[in-house]
Amino acid sequence: MRVREATAVTGGPDRWVGELADGWDILGITNGGYGMALATRAMESAASGRRLISATGTFINRSTPGRVQIDVETLKEGRTTSTLRSTVSRDGTSLFFVTAVFGSATSSTDARDMVAGDPPALPDPGSCVLVQPVEGAPFPPPLSDKVEIRIHPDDAAAFLGTHSAVPSMRGWFRLLDGEPIDAHALVFATDAFPPAIFTSEVGPGWTPTVELSVQVRNPTPTGWLSCRFTTRFVTGGMLEEDGELWDEAGRLVALSRQLALVPR
Amino acid sequence: MRVREATAVTGGPDRWVGELADGWDILGITNGGYGMALATRAMESAASGRRLISATGTFINRSTPGRVQIDVETLKEGRTTSTLRSTVSRDGTSLFFVTAVFGSATSSTDARDMVAGDPPALPDPGSCVLVQPVEGAPFPPPLSDKVEIRIHPDDAAAFLGTHSAVPSMRGWFRLLDGEPIDAHALVFATDAFPPAIFTSEVGPGWTPTVELSVQVRNPTPTGWLSCRFTTRFVTGGMLEEDGELWDEAGRLVALSRQLALVPR
Repeated sequence: MRVREATAVTGGPDRWVGELADGWDILGITNGGYGMALATRAMESAASGRRLISATGTFINRSTPGRVQIDVETLKEGRTTSTLRSTVSRDGTSLFFVTAVFGSATSSTDARDMVAGDPPALPDPGSCVLVQPVEGAPFPPPLSDKVEIRIHPDDAAAFLGTHSAVPSMRGWFRLLDGEPIDAHALVFATDAFPPAIFTSEVGPGWTPTVELSVQVRNPTPTGWLSCRFTTRFVTGGMLEEDGELWDEAGRLVALSRQLALVPR
Repeated sequence: MRVREATAVTGGPDRWVGELADGWDILGITNGGYGMALATRAMESAASGRRLISATGTFINRSTPGRVQIDVETLKEGRTTSTLRSTVSRDGTSLFFVTAVFGSATSSTDARDMVAGDPPALPDPGSCVLVQPVEGAPFPPPLSDKVEIRIHPDDAAAFLGTHSAVPSMRGWFRLLDGEPIDAHALVFATDAFPPAIFTSEVGPGWTPTVELSVQVRNPTPTGWLSCRFTTRFVTGGMLEEDGELWDEAGRLVALSRQLALVPR
């Protein structure tokens, strides 16, 4: 199933229906970024042709596969940006909220553009480690084979007991069967990798996402995405995960920040 | 006027009234982080004694000084966290929204705590440049003398025409008259410095905040805060500003990320 099909919504303009697809989950809980992509698809239809420039999801109840309702509200239609909010619910219970900004901001180059950063240095995709679900094991989750993720061997080593001092998860990302990546697939991509914290001594475990914020800097990336997710601060039971996604042309395509709770 | 007074709210539990104080603005527009602090104060009263762990503001209409209404809604009261949303409005027009998470996450040290980062290296406060409003000039804004901000001389040099390759604004922050910093003052602090982008060749200008997200890692910092704000990516008319705030004991007290639009 393509991302485009898995995020299909019907209805509108204020109330939409979609289906959180089976298998796009971890431990039976639907992936948060994937759920957000369903919501941004619905919101885009109400955004007067403007493109998605940012989306922030707030997760309050665990999502599971199945039909959901997406209520979309336009908070403001301004001169250059529109702000919309959606509530994703099932049987009257809200699962998560997404606030999204759509704008006329372009992906074209501006004389004032500035990029102080680089894509991660990665071996060729073929030399990286393909993440594939393991039947009966919680990790890697069923979600893993819905896209193609190939992890830097140094970061993959964490799963064999070699931990890194600064948790980082670097790797390649693309959709299956040559499906092009759009803004909604980018939102999903920021949450599709194994959490960077897994590479630390904290190790794999249930790290519930409280909030995920994504900035879409370029909605039409080309080729493989090279991605870097880093967690620098684990304090007071909280952690952040910062993501950078780049395309093969070396352009920054998305930034993400996630707030998650460290399991107790 | 202390921050505590400037963020005072009355009423509750669902509807509060507060006053965006005169002079806490830039170009006549009330500072976004300050406005958010008013909202988090109101929300805290509805959070069953839990402490603020994150707040995300979405700005849709410009705020100006004067009375505002703050409507607070509890989205979820969970086992370990509560999620609330507030709408700050005047005369029926929404100005901004704040989603906040309150939790039982502690500020105490956990065996799994990890900090991969350091406070910025700063000269003594007395050797840094005090930011003070200039009568009749748009910058520094009136907001500047409501708190004490002392900027690293290298970053202050940008205002004299010396630009930095990677925009950064580093400096000291404290409240006046020894007022202690709490979680709400921290939210404000993340938006109180001159934008880092001002130190680049883009220079000073109106860079409207679309969204500001703050993680409060330690709500009881001691002494001066040392702060670092950085903008690494200016693309497609958008920029992010990432902030780190540390206390004198060397503890991380807050993280922030802002999405702003580059003026055209």
